[in-house]
Amino acid sequence: MAVNAPAIVLVEPQLGENIGAAARAMRNFGLSDLRLVAPRDGWPNPRAEPMASGATDILATARLYTDLPSAVADLNHVLATTARARELAKPTLSPRAAAQRLRGAGERNATAGILFGRERTGLDNEEMLQSEALIYIPTNPSFSSLNLAQAVLLLGYEWWLAGAADPAEDWPDELATGATHADRARLADHLVTELDAVNFFRPASKRAASVAKLRNLLFRVELSSNEVRMLRGVVHALATGEPGERQES
Amino acid sequence: MAVNAPAIVLVEPQLGENIGAAARAMRNFGLSDLRLVAPRDGWPNPRAEPMASGATDILATARLYTDLPSAVADLNHVLATTARARELAKPTLSPRAAAQRLRGAGERNATAGILFGRERTGLDNEEMLQSEALIYIPTNPSFSSLNLAQAVLLLGYEWWLAGAADPAEDWPDELATGATHADRARLADHLVTELDAVNFFRPASKRAASVAKLRNLLFRVELSSNEVRMLRGVVHALATGEPGERQES
Repeated sequence: MAVNAPAIVLVEPQLGENIGAAARAMRNFGLSDLRLVAPRDGWPNPRAEPMASGATDILATARLYTDLPSAVADLNHVLATTARARELAKPTLSPRAAAQRLRGAGERNATAGILFGRERTGLDNEEMLQSEALIYIPTNPSFSSLNLAQAVLLLGYEWWLAGAADPAEDWPDELATGATHADRARLADHLVTELDAVNFFRPASKRAASVAKLRNLLFRVELSSNEVRMLRGVVHALATGEPGERQES
Repeated sequence: MAVNAPAIVLVEPQLGENIGAAARAMRNFGLSDLRLVAPRDGWPNPRAEPMASGATDILATARLYTDLPSAVADLNHVLATTARARELAKPTLSPRAAAQRLRGAGERNATAGILFGRERTGLDNEEMLQSEALIYIPTNPSFSSLNLAQAVLLLGYEWWLAGAADPAEDWPDELATGATHADRARLADHLVTELDAVNFFRPASKRAASVAKLRNLLFRVELSSNEVRMLRGVVHALATGEPGERQES
C-alpha cells in the first residue's frame, strides 16, 4: 500500500529485544524495510523474536550491513534522529515535519531512511553529518530518554498519520448530524411542562432561570434523534407512571 | 509546569512490567497522575519498577482503586481509548484531536483522565460508555495491536506536543538565513571560469546546458555563507593546486 515507506536503519543496536520491539512498532505503522548496521550481538539474534509479537517477517527480511554508508547507499534521503541539539549545520525537524518530508519524498518515488543510534550513546557526529536533516523528538526535558523502539514507534506513527486519511474526529452516523433543533425544543418543552405539572420550579421567582439552565443543557449536549425520542419516553414515563409506547433503540 | 495534565487511568492492567513502562512513558511527556483500577497482580508490584527506568516517583504516588467510577469520580472529562470502532453513540477522536481537547480542558482548569483497558481485551462497553468520547489510535489495520505502554506513550506524546512550543523546523542560525544570492553567484562564476580554463564543458554545443545545470544546483541547495566561502576555497585549490588562504570552519 505504502509507496516507498522509509527504511528504518538501526546503527549498532545493542539489545536484540529492542530490535524485535522496533520491528513490531514498524509493523504497526506500515513500515517493513529494517536495516541493521553492525548489531552488537550479531544477527540473527534470538532475543529479537519474542518482542516482535508477530512482526517476524520484518526480522526475517532485515538486512545486515557492516557500516552506515553501505546501509544507506541506495537511499535518496537520509534523516537522523538525535536526542539533543547539535552543532551541525543542518535543520532539525520535528517528527511531524520529518514525516511530511518523507511522505513528499515517497510521492516523488524517492527512497528514504531514518537513522536511529545506539541505545546508550545515539549516533555520533560523523554519522549525523551523513544525513540531510536531523529529527528531534520533543520530550520532557527533565526526563528525555526514550527507548529505541519507542523512538521508532513515534516516527512510524507520524509517518503513518502523514499519509492516512483517518479523520481527526469521527462521528457515528446518528450523531454526525444528531437531533434537530426542533427535536430538542420539543423535548425541552415536554420536560418543562411535566416539571411544571409537579411544581418542580420553586420558588416561582427562580423558575425562569432554572428553565433556562435546563434548556441550555438540552441544546448543548450532543444527542441523536433516537436519544431525544428515548428521553421523551423517559419524561413521559416518569410523569405519567406509564411506560408509554415501546421505545425503539 | 503542566496545568492539569490528564490522569492516566489503567483499568485492570495485567502485567506489572506494562505499568512500569507506562509510568516511564508518562514521565517522558510530563504526566504524573497514574491511577490503577484493580490491577490483576495487586499493587505495589515489584515487576513495575525495572521498566519505569527512573520514573519511580510516578509508581510511588500511583493511586489504587477498586472500580472505575471511584477512579474517575473527581475528573471533569473522561476519554476512553479503544482499539476498534464501537457502536456507542459517542464521537471518536484521533490522539491529536483528543490532546487538543485535553489541553483546552486544562486551560479552563478542568481535570481530565484517559482510560486504557486491559492488555488483552481493552475496555468493555460499560466502561466505555462512562467516557465523553473515545480515542482511536490509527495503526496499520493488518497489525493494529499496540502494547499498553505504547498507547500511553502516543497519547502522552500528542498531549505534550499540543502544549509545546517546539518548532516544526529549527534551523541553525547560519543556515536560517544562509548564503546570499550574490555569494552563490560568485561561487558559480568562479567555478565555471575555472572549469572553462580546463575545457571542462565539451562539446561546446552542450556548454550552455551544462553550465545551467551546475548553476541550478548551486542556487538550489541550502548553503551557509561559510559553506560558500569554503567551496570557493575548494574551487581555488583544485584549480590552482594551491591551498589558498586558510579556511575558517
